[in-house]
Amino acid sequence: MFITFEGPEGSGKTSVIKNVYDYLTKRGYEIILTREPGGTPIAEEIRNVILDKKNTNLDARAEALLYAASRRQHLVEKVWPALKEGKIVLCDRFLDSSLAYQGGARGIGVEEILNVNLFATEGFYPDLTFLLDIEPSLGLKRIALNKNREVNRLDLEKIEFHNKVRQTFLDLAKKYEDRYVIIDASKPLTEVNKSVEEAIARRLKEK
Amino acid sequence: MFITFEGPEGSGKTSVIKNVYDYLTKRGYEIILTREPGGTPIAEEIRNVILDKKNTNLDARAEALLYAASRRQHLVEKVWPALKEGKIVLCDRFLDSSLAYQGGARGIGVEEILNVNLFATEGFYPDLTFLLDIEPSLGLKRIALNKNREVNRLDLEKIEFHNKVRQTFLDLAKKYEDRYVIIDASKPLTEVNKSVEEAIARRLKEK
Repeated sequence: MFITFEGPEGSGKTSVIKNVYDYLTKRGYEIILTREPGGTPIAEEIRNVILDKKNTNLDARAEALLYAASRRQHLVEKVWPALKEGKIVLCDRFLDSSLAYQGGARGIGVEEILNVNLFATEGFYPDLTFLLDIEPSLGLKRIALNKNREVNRLDLEKIEFHNKVRQTFLDLAKKYEDRYVIIDASKPLTEVNKSVEEAIARRLKEK
Repeated sequence: MFITFEGPEGSGKTSVIKNVYDYLTKRGYEIILTREPGGTPIAEEIRNVILDKKNTNLDARAEALLYAASRRQHLVEKVWPALKEGKIVLCDRFLDSSLAYQGGARGIGVEEILNVNLFATEGFYPDLTFLLDIEPSLGLKRIALNKNREVNRLDLEKIEFHNKVRQTFLDLAKKYEDRYVIIDASKPLTEVNKSVEEAIARRLKEK
């Protein structure tokens, strides 16, 4: 089973995934916790091109193609082999983040980004995707609290961008309602964790 | 005007392009002679990932995405700006090589590779594409002559691969007949050059 975790900044993804890892490990499942590029050397090399600070003139479409290439390599080298061995793979961000950030917020278009990614994934989708949904202004406040700093002008200017990210995620949750579970991430972490655990338990029972 | 030169190994592309460069320069045209990644630092970085000998397990689809990313960056940084300035751009291999090598010969499928590349090029095609067509066994013999070595077993084993490359190029020439000019590259270089010059002169007159 391939489970992905999506959501805007400050939605608490990291804590939630860690909890799911413990929850499933305790119940005897073999778990792989990963995120792209997932420590696969080629995917990391690709990611280095994207993140290289010298590359300020990296074109948005070239960037999207690089993300798709890195995704492909991560799938081939890490995710698919683990699934074949019957493991549960938890992935911190996946396809839907590209759709929300590059397709929706950056304006390339969700269908265009999906198209390129379907070439990379050969039509492979997560079995289950958690959207940790939160009002962007609240998410940014949380990040600020974490980092012990105030929300600054730049953060606030980004609100529009993050609103678009959120809206695209919500649209995707509607489009892919069979695999999506929306979690209200503004609630206390214990409640959030409980909702996620329940959804996973339900899904494992169905399998 | 954007002119690309395609063809299998040993078809004499390099000599032909050099001749076109001289031919057009003498007639007062401003020419850019390029090939991907074209000296653009980001595209070169991407190409290094593809060519890195450590990366023997680079997946074929990840490779195709990297080529498309490099192509995009080369277009944005070098080809499109030159065309905007009214220059003629001559490019040694382009889109059609991906279609022939990765789509046709490697078996990913021409339509699939085209799809990914259309994302990169946003539907941009060459104005004119020369296919320097040659029987693969003859092309390989030429390369061997150039390098002062005999055609070896490995070269011959590759014949089937090169036959597929050639056939895909011929199919593309049929599909895109408006922009394609097929040149019989088995003829002497002076004849080949003359045919190419004539085709370019015709096209420039039409413009």
